[in-house]
Amino acid sequence: MLIVQKFGGTSVGDIPRIKNVARKVKAELDKKNKVIVVVSAMSGVTNQLVNYANQVSSLTSDEALLEYDSIVATGEQVTCGLLALELQSIGYKARSFLGWQLPIKTDDVHSKARIESIDAEFLLKSLDENDVVVIAGFQGIHAESNRLTTLGRGGSDTSAVAIAAAVKADLCDIYTDVNGVYTTDPRITDKARKLKRVTYEEMLEMAYSGSKVLQTRSVAMAMAHNVRVRVLSTFEEVTDSSGTILVNNNEEIMERRVITGISYAKNEVRITLIKMPDHPGVSAAIFGALAEREVNVDMIVQNISPDSKTIDITFTTGADDLERAKLAIETIKDEVKYAQVLIDDNIAKVSVIGVGMISHSGVAHTMFKTLAEKGINILLISTSEIKISVLIAKEYGELAVRVLHDVYGLGLS
Amino acid sequence: MLIVQKFGGTSVGDIPRIKNVARKVKAELDKKNKVIVVVSAMSGVTNQLVNYANQVSSLTSDEALLEYDSIVATGEQVTCGLLALELQSIGYKARSFLGWQLPIKTDDVHSKARIESIDAEFLLKSLDENDVVVIAGFQGIHAESNRLTTLGRGGSDTSAVAIAAAVKADLCDIYTDVNGVYTTDPRITDKARKLKRVTYEEMLEMAYSGSKVLQTRSVAMAMAHNVRVRVLSTFEEVTDSSGTILVNNNEEIMERRVITGISYAKNEVRITLIKMPDHPGVSAAIFGALAEREVNVDMIVQNISPDSKTIDITFTTGADDLERAKLAIETIKDEVKYAQVLIDDNIAKVSVIGVGMISHSGVAHTMFKTLAEKGINILLISTSEIKISVLIAKEYGELAVRVLHDVYGLGLS
Repeated sequence: MLIVQKFGGTSVGDIPRIKNVARKVKAELDKKNKVIVVVSAMSGVTNQLVNYANQVSSLTSDEALLEYDSIVATGEQVTCGLLALELQSIGYKARSFLGWQLPIKTDDVHSKARIESIDAEFLLKSLDENDVVVIAGFQGIHAESNRLTTLGRGGSDTSAVAIAAAVKADLCDIYTDVNGVYTTDPRITDKARKLKRVTYEEMLEMAYSGSKVLQTRSVAMAMAHNVRVRVLSTFEEVTDSSGTILVNNNEEIMERRVITGISYAKNEVRITLIKMPDHPGVSAAIFGALAEREVNVDMIVQNISPDSKTIDITFTTGADDLERAKLAIETIKDEVKYAQVLIDDNIAKVSVIGVGMISHSGVAHTMFKTLAEKGINILLISTSEIKISVLIAKEYGELAVRVLHDVYGLGLS
Repeated sequence: MLIVQKFGGTSVGDIPRIKNVARKVKAELDKKNKVIVVVSAMSGVTNQLVNYANQVSSLTSDEALLEYDSIVATGEQVTCGLLALELQSIGYKARSFLGWQLPIKTDDVHSKARIESIDAEFLLKSLDENDVVVIAGFQGIHAESNRLTTLGRGGSDTSAVAIAAAVKADLCDIYTDVNGVYTTDPRITDKARKLKRVTYEEMLEMAYSGSKVLQTRSVAMAMAHNVRVRVLSTFEEVTDSSGTILVNNNEEIMERRVITGISYAKNEVRITLIKMPDHPGVSAAIFGALAEREVNVDMIVQNISPDSKTIDITFTTGADDLERAKLAIETIKDEVKYAQVLIDDNIAKVSVIGVGMISHSGVAHTMFKTLAEKGINILLISTSEIKISVLIAKEYGELAVRVLHDVYGLGLS
């Protein structure tokens, strides 16, 4: 088998843990598998680097983001070198590749770049010449400018899946500090239960709705390229029942259910532009300006004001995008003529997710009724085929997760 | 003027210091000078990275050194990005270059690579397009293998001088934590005096003999390419009398003197191979094996044993090279048939240096007599045209420096 193994920041958090990762790699090599390893930076290192960058720059210009990418890419550079060294020390022919060496070519959207191509032929040739190759996750290169790029937070998952897709790997194992995907965050309720399987679509909604197990883009990429992804813990022995595996909707899901999980996001911000003259093109101007600044918008609601002559538009975005969102809004002030901008970060988003929702009615009603019974006010609603998200006051977030987890029977095995 | 400014690890040791460096750059830009900046890693960072690498590898194989270089090169990558960001924040068009981006091409002697070429045309073009460019010191690339290389400890000095030579800069300012080159280490005697000028040759001997102000190779390169180098403090205002300037021997030295300075090195190791059969080729075998492993040998002495049939060979090397030296010696065990290897790190090297020595006799006699009067035993002697070095027991090192500084009248201005 050809396996891609990806190890996150806590998995490579210090030298003993890097040695532990080498043992995980060895276990696959001992089974005569070919292995490509993708690593994140040591946990805390990227935050430290971002903190340094924030102290010298507002990081709002394109030029600044070029430098930012070059700075933060060093975290993965260190860990992939160290893991290659450790693998050499335990007797394997190992070498590291940085994003620009492979190369992993991306677009030029610095700090949030998208992978455009990976030289699979060269990578497979290197794998022939070595027992194992170790690749720095999270980073790539914009070929025309010869400048480093990074893929955004959690981008190493995307690196791993993209590499697995490029070399047509049999399996992409994502090693992390949890032993799989749960019905909800086990820190919020001890009734949370590990899922053996989850569909790509469900995982995508979970990732998008706040579950941090996998980065959204990595799941979308796995779905698009049909990459067999398994999420499992670096700190446990791997057995056949380890982890959670991502499957297609049409594959048999042993544990058939209506709702698969409850996601929770508390790091979002609600932004409202109020009293804008109601004319065509207002939303286009706003969301165009946000897109230009690479602001990811999540929920959107538009209201007519009580006076019926002006409109309000509310949307949510991640706290990380807030500064860029403010700048984007500032640039269209004269165009859309808002009276005021309201910013509220005292919010939480709770989502119920499940492919079973398609064929079962009443899921939304159950959700709204349950929240109402607890006196929890719903600020915004957004839905997809397999997901219902509500925005509520942050203080009610964990309570909402617990009662919804109970009402949908997710704690029962 | 076209100026290269190089800032060492303590100069960029934290964010406030990086901001201070940006002010030093601004001072030159305000004078309408064109500026290329070369930076080291934040102080402590390279040591931390080396420490990590040592925990997973003995770093003896070529493959390991490839990874080592990729790991330790990250230190400079961070600081050059941060300085570029800070320069942007104070209003300049600034961009960073990593060694491989410029590129700074080197040979493939990993961890101790030598610069082979720098694309001066591209660099000058980038300088036209920007107010200032910031280059990561210490690192380069071996073009054929596309792998990162580093230039060895203090290599950023060499980077700066090589860049200054390539672009024919008018001045190469090396900013450090001392305000110039002293007659000896001021921490050893408060009579140490700053030199206004020093010849390349003297500086070379000082660097080689333990003064850590400039890396040996950077001085040799400055001499070869006639680069005007000035050593000065990052933490003081720059005036016309700041720092120490490196000059040619034929330039007028205002402060004519016999001895220019006393150097002191305590990080060396003495290695003795004893009782080897005396036949031609013994030294060639030993020093060939050492050269192959990139061990820098300093002093060498060969003795005939009392029995006249075997020889002993003693040499010194830096503590950093000890492990490689041991490996090298092991490989020639059968060939040179030494009875035993003695290793002594309880030694110090004290050197008196000065171009005036050429035309003045009695310098060596004064040195040996002075040490003898203090009861200091000389273990080894080595000399050049402008330098006399002695190896003594480490405990006498600082005493020797002080008495020699006095006897040659270096404290008098």
